[in-house]
Amino acid sequence: MLTVDLNCDMGESFGAYKMGSDEEILPFITSANIACGFHAGDPSTMRKTVQMAMKHDVKLGAHPGLQDLIGFGRRNMDISYKEAYDLVQYQVGALQGIVKSEGGTLQHVKAHGALYNMAATNANLAEGIAQAVYDLDPNLILYGMAGGKLLEAGEKVGLQTASEVFADRTYQETGMLTSRREANALIENVDTASAQVIRMVTENKVETVQGKDIMIQADTVCIHGDGANALAFARQVKEKVKEAGITVQAFQK
Amino acid sequence: MLTVDLNCDMGESFGAYKMGSDEEILPFITSANIACGFHAGDPSTMRKTVQMAMKHDVKLGAHPGLQDLIGFGRRNMDISYKEAYDLVQYQVGALQGIVKSEGGTLQHVKAHGALYNMAATNANLAEGIAQAVYDLDPNLILYGMAGGKLLEAGEKVGLQTASEVFADRTYQETGMLTSRREANALIENVDTASAQVIRMVTENKVETVQGKDIMIQADTVCIHGDGANALAFARQVKEKVKEAGITVQAFQK
Amino acid sequence: MLTVDLNCDMGESFGAYKMGSDEEILPFITSANIACGFHAGDPSTMRKTVQMAMKHDVKLGAHPGLQDLIGFGRRNMDISYKEAYDLVQYQVGALQGIVKSEGGTLQHVKAHGALYNMAATNANLAEGIAQAVYDLDPNLILYGMAGGKLLEAGEKVGLQTASEVFADRTYQETGMLTSRREANALIENVDTASAQVIRMVTENKVETVQGKDIMIQADTVCIHGDGANALAFARQVKEKVKEAGITVQAFQK
Amino acid sequence: MLTVDLNCDMGESFGAYKMGSDEEILPFITSANIACGFHAGDPSTMRKTVQMAMKHDVKLGAHPGLQDLIGFGRRNMDISYKEAYDLVQYQVGALQGIVKSEGGTLQHVKAHGALYNMAATNANLAEGIAQAVYDLDPNLILYGMAGGKLLEAGEKVGLQTASEVFADRTYQETGMLTSRREANALIENVDTASAQVIRMVTENKVETVQGKDIMIQADTVCIHGDGANALAFARQVKEKVKEAGITVQAFQK
Repeated sequence: MLTVDLNCDMGESFGAYKMGSDEEILPFITSANIACGFHAGDPSTMRKTVQMAMKHDVKLGAHPGLQDLIGFGRRNMDISYKEAYDLVQYQVGALQGIVKSEGGTLQHVKAHGALYNMAATNANLAEGIAQAVYDLDPNLILYGMAGGKLLEAGEKVGLQTASEVFADRTYQETGMLTSRREANALIENVDTASAQVIRMVTENKVETVQGKDIMIQADTVCIHGDGANALAFARQVKEKVKEAGITVQAFQK
Repeated sequence: MLTVDLNCDMGESFGAYKMGSDEEILPFITSANIACGFHAGDPSTMRKTVQMAMKHDVKLGAHPGLQDLIGFGRRNMDISYKEAYDLVQYQVGALQGIVKSEGGTLQHVKAHGALYNMAATNANLAEGIAQAVYDLDPNLILYGMAGGKLLEAGEKVGLQTASEVFADRTYQETGMLTSRREANALIENVDTASAQVIRMVTENKVETVQGKDIMIQADTVCIHGDGANALAFARQVKEKVKEAGITVQAFQK
Repeated sequence: MLTVDLNCDMGESFGAYKMGSDEEILPFITSANIACGFHAGDPSTMRKTVQMAMKHDVKLGAHPGLQDLIGFGRRNMDISYKEAYDLVQYQVGALQGIVKSEGGTLQHVKAHGALYNMAATNANLAEGIAQAVYDLDPNLILYGMAGGKLLEAGEKVGLQTASEVFADRTYQETGMLTSRREANALIENVDTASAQVIRMVTENKVETVQGKDIMIQADTVCIHGDGANALAFARQVKEKVKEAGITVQAFQK
Repeated sequence: MLTVDLNCDMGESFGAYKMGSDEEILPFITSANIACGFHAGDPSTMRKTVQMAMKHDVKLGAHPGLQDLIGFGRRNMDISYKEAYDLVQYQVGALQGIVKSEGGTLQHVKAHGALYNMAATNANLAEGIAQAVYDLDPNLILYGMAGGKLLEAGEKVGLQTASEVFADRTYQETGMLTSRREANALIENVDTASAQVIRMVTENKVETVQGKDIMIQADTVCIHGDGANALAFARQVKEKVKEAGITVQAFQK
């Protein structure tokens, strides 16, 4: 049976500041990446998001980021293996406490923003993150960019991993995403985006902007929760993927 | 067998900032209250403190505080039941993750500074803290000021509690500590301090500044880790308590 | 000539988090209270807000708050005279630097949230704030709640002050605002709100919820920039005040 | 007349955390770089440091850093021209307000840690910092690493600049400092260090670790305020430089 997980970042509000449309997007996803208070999120928002996700039967994941609230964790920072290890474990632990208190179970960990991007190419950082997750709880599933160093590190340490692909981003021959600075970085047509996902799941292939196919593993698809058309986009991707005979579901251990 | 626990706040360094003499004080205590990153502490300091405490066979506790790093969590803040509940659970969860990763077990929770003081007199806040600890892990022991609201709340919710007394502070007839603004708030003579502890443990009594005895439960004694004479004071209190036939040990569940 | 200033809090976005409808409300006000990075706001938001306000010929003010971003500066905190003095001067200085760089002039200072409320009743805190403003720049105008301690302190120290009233809040016989916890705290009808403002400006009186008139000085009216009807409310209050023959303008020194 | 300025970073305490020996080092320096609350420092520490420096007739400078308190501003972060511009102006403005309130004048700006290092090689960032300083106050003197991009940017924008050299660090043929990761990065012998400074001031030359002399401009020397021998080192460097006939003084405009 062909399956795929649809994940979305959530719980990114902070104090009086509201961000995202978490409640609205939950019906269309199967796994939630919940911000843990460093790049976004706070203890009360984390709990509320956990409760909402559980109500919608969406699996819970930690979404740890760099300690850069003002930059929303999107700015690369020169952190060490040890700093990565410690900040991941702190944040995942904090969320795990809240999840446990709410009677749930944490399914996965997905790094946020600059931490996610750096871990895709920096093996040392990737190992710090993977080891931190494993040492905290070896049952957690580690999400990472398809073809990136974090997945390698996760496998090496003994974690179950999930290779993440993007519905609305184009790919380079190198396997990397086209930079957002390029004009052709985004796929705005939902049919094209859905077709890309379906092909990645069924054939393990994606056509790059250079016109050549590359191999890609698609265990989970990143769905964006913000932006004007996010909800419509999410709904349609989910529908089309299901129409293609793919089962949309989170992971089982 | 008469027993008493000696606890000390630790892990209050932050980034490049060093505070306290944790390594030096560990031989004289049985339980460590480890700051969790809000009023003091950071992920790396927390881990290092957990490792040091475990090496000295000192029991591990979480020391959550108000989110007021610049005020070191010592300034009263008007927080709600829900805010207290959420910030305690976040911080204790974060430390519990690190403790688990290091192969240890969390023994207790002791609130810090203004949160500790407010919880001694504010029943609503006390209930928020106690419930948060219970919902996270009902095996945790809740420390609180002898005779205060937090102990009441802990018992009500079903937690094991530890009634905390002070070796170097004087008591009022009301059972409260003499305010630090008063001249006679502190006991600087170590013999007097030790005698006070011994009497609290053996007779459940303490002489107040008004000259009258009051009943007091002494399960654990707060040892201060900073200040010029902290180490000598801690060593002597421990020795004298042991000479009086009291076993110095942490709690067993 | 009867005049009144209409002020509004702005620049309360933070990093990726957007708050308020600053650009839309600017046409209806004469003075902007710009958040300074403690309870809300950040260096880039401050500059953008200064630029927008100058474009609309709206006078610039600093809106310093408590260092409680997660609580949006709305939670009372036990701070000292010295802490108030220092945090006000830091924040106002930071904004003044940006204003100077943009070729503008800072007109006033209005404390935010809990700092504003505490300063209305706590004379010591009020004096700390007033002295900080005076020592930084004696040409700044100090806004404060009508009848409150901050205005007293401002006058005592030698600052020009502006007595602030609310269009959409009801008043108690004591001169204080009705607590938001009370059912009758808010005036939602814009005609009633405008009439209250007009009477405060023309007669220096307001009818309290107890039915009795009290004297009140209305130099400036607080306009709320958030909420569904904020823009319509602001526009109508301004129009009705002008129709009553009152000139809507900021302060001249 | 040959002159040189001796500068030292100070005011790096934060809340309850104490760092440095500011009071002790002040007699040996002529310019103080005062932390502004982002990488270190807080409003009360800033004021106290300004007061101490003025008492010792030491010139006042702002020492803005990255918003990375936990990393003490030492970790490179990917910030834009605009982010650099805004964060510098905010911090320098905040300090300038406090300085003005204390009756002093700000002499200079020296970026801290990673911001300083990045600005030495990244022209875009350097221009953002230089422009921010100029737009805030064109009378400020901009300190920067000898031979670095920040000095170039400062001159281009029209600021007076001060070329900074190090007494206790070795130099590469490229004009850059030897990385602290290298064994020969530090000069621990105070005679060697003093001789290096004297030669840099009198001959505009320094011998590199490769054995070759390079040209270097030495307007100001960085003196370290922490470390076991900091005070003795500072005292001796100052004495030896004076014995060599060089006048130790800050800048005049």
